[in-house]
Amino acid sequence: MVLPAFFSVYRPQIETELKATAKTNLASLNNVLDYHWGWIDQQGQPRQNTLGKLVRGTLCLVSCRAVGGDYQQALPAAAALELVHTFSLIHDDIEDNSVERHHQPTVWKLWGEAQAINAGDAVYTLSHLTLLQLVKRGISTDKVIHCLKVLDGACLELCEGQYLDITYEDRVDISIDDYFNLISKKTGALMAASTCLGALLGMANPALIELFYTIGRELGLAYQIRDDILGIWGLEKSTGKPARDDIIKRKKTLPVVYSFHKAQGRDKKRLLGLYQKPVIEEPDISRIVEILDALEVRAFSESRANEHYLQALKYIEETNLPPSNLKELKELARFFAEREY
Amino acid sequence: MVLPAFFSVYRPQIETELKATAKTNLASLNNVLDYHWGWIDQQGQPRQNTLGKLVRGTLCLVSCRAVGGDYQQALPAAAALELVHTFSLIHDDIEDNSVERHHQPTVWKLWGEAQAINAGDAVYTLSHLTLLQLVKRGISTDKVIHCLKVLDGACLELCEGQYLDITYEDRVDISIDDYFNLISKKTGALMAASTCLGALLGMANPALIELFYTIGRELGLAYQIRDDILGIWGLEKSTGKPARDDIIKRKKTLPVVYSFHKAQGRDKKRLLGLYQKPVIEEPDISRIVEILDALEVRAFSESRANEHYLQALKYIEETNLPPSNLKELKELARFFAEREY
Repeated sequence: MVLPAFFSVYRPQIETELKATAKTNLASLNNVLDYHWGWIDQQGQPRQNTLGKLVRGTLCLVSCRAVGGDYQQALPAAAALELVHTFSLIHDDIEDNSVERHHQPTVWKLWGEAQAINAGDAVYTLSHLTLLQLVKRGISTDKVIHCLKVLDGACLELCEGQYLDITYEDRVDISIDDYFNLISKKTGALMAASTCLGALLGMANPALIELFYTIGRELGLAYQIRDDILGIWGLEKSTGKPARDDIIKRKKTLPVVYSFHKAQGRDKKRLLGLYQKPVIEEPDISRIVEILDALEVRAFSESRANEHYLQALKYIEETNLPPSNLKELKELARFFAEREY
Repeated sequence: MVLPAFFSVYRPQIETELKATAKTNLASLNNVLDYHWGWIDQQGQPRQNTLGKLVRGTLCLVSCRAVGGDYQQALPAAAALELVHTFSLIHDDIEDNSVERHHQPTVWKLWGEAQAINAGDAVYTLSHLTLLQLVKRGISTDKVIHCLKVLDGACLELCEGQYLDITYEDRVDISIDDYFNLISKKTGALMAASTCLGALLGMANPALIELFYTIGRELGLAYQIRDDILGIWGLEKSTGKPARDDIIKRKKTLPVVYSFHKAQGRDKKRLLGLYQKPVIEEPDISRIVEILDALEVRAFSESRANEHYLQALKYIEETNLPPSNLKELKELARFFAEREY
């Protein structure tokens, strides 16, 4: 499934906000944002491509329109969500020791760990200053405070999710519930904040805002499971991640967590043996994927992603908003669950 | 000079706020705050001592009282300032590869780098959530937004300062101006935010709030220069830092920066030679301190600290507030410039 057409409307406008932020000319950022977002290459030369789909910002704007709001008022929130996501990627790449993202060296690989930690902190700070710009777009200070609470609540969950992610790396006894708890925090929280902020900035009905929060959480789960699937069976060219990087990093993705539970006898022994090796190497990856394929964990994972997609659709219907308002949100939901990159 | 008596009034109240924050029971923090603040030891056993003087929070409350405000309303701001300071120490210790603080292993030494980066992010998030609690104390949302701008502005400067600090480590050509630019960002900014937030929460006169901001900046400079002096000539027992740690880390403190400019001939050659060694060892430290002593850089540094203390006092007088209001602030200013720890 290709990127929905409306991305070409929203993405450039979020990018304009982000470009204004990147222009703050901070020495501590020193081209980090332009590089991370794919506007310049390692040599500082301009690049054509923008890396990243800006799905969180887009989700926020689509949600704002769905409730009948003026999405342009919500642009600082969309940019703030992307800045939080960017900060978390810069720090996660250090924490996970990831050397590449979108076929490019990660920020810490180029700037060193110390400056990358600090640059992440600066980006995190900018996310808040960007959100405060909502005041200039005519949003009341009461509402901006509400937005900040939602965003910071999500950030706290993000840290909790990352804590679990690091902790789980060395474990092979993660339950399916543990897995869902992890991704709900690590991915669901910021997606929930995205739909919630969009709805909040578009109108004032608390029950509807709460419903949008729940829609975002479900979409986040579908998105992450899809990510897990693409991380093993996706094409490196489209995902931008080194093939099967999740396996090398012992990430407790749904296919892997489920395989530990489903595997029996010899398969289980082989799987545990491979995951307990000090380093998982190229031939090990193929062996692991062979076992995953034999256990049909891909179909299981796809059905779980689909469940959360359908759950999100159910909540979307419960909003009782006019179908024309919900068209983009539904299309985005389908993209989250079926995307190939 | 001992800690002014009013610390015994404000510190326990800031601690109460901080204890409430530490009780949020986040897995990602996992005793990090209780340990960092000295309420438990490495084994998780309760300790008597509180580490850290909580000077930023105290400065905020003293400023609030100076303008005639109710300092208890400002307690969430005082706690938020301390949380920002704590987050920055947790990350700085990783960035600077510091293994000890207050005679205890640093957070990353105990929890590992990955979890320490993430814990710092969680603490930073809590600082904002704590500041938002001002709303519950009856502060208007307009004012809370103003406070957030001040705090985030300081955080951005903090990152800029840390960037310079890391960059300067390998350089021996730092000018006195470079040094002041660095400490104005790394220390001055958060102190300026402390006095500014206190004043802002205590009343509404913009010119006076601006003046308090400037007072804090000057106090920050005096505080940092004093810190530089104590880092070389202070007693390890009182400062809590390993003796002459700043020298081993090649920190561009005022005594060192000035010595590079003042040294001539053989002294200069020896000094540069020592600072360009791959590792600065114990005998090197003594040689460096000998040169610093011969160049009388301590007296120079003390006079510069005193200048900024006097400048702060001048601005304090310019507030035209009743002398009884300014008593604590002046006492705190003197402590900043003359403290032995």
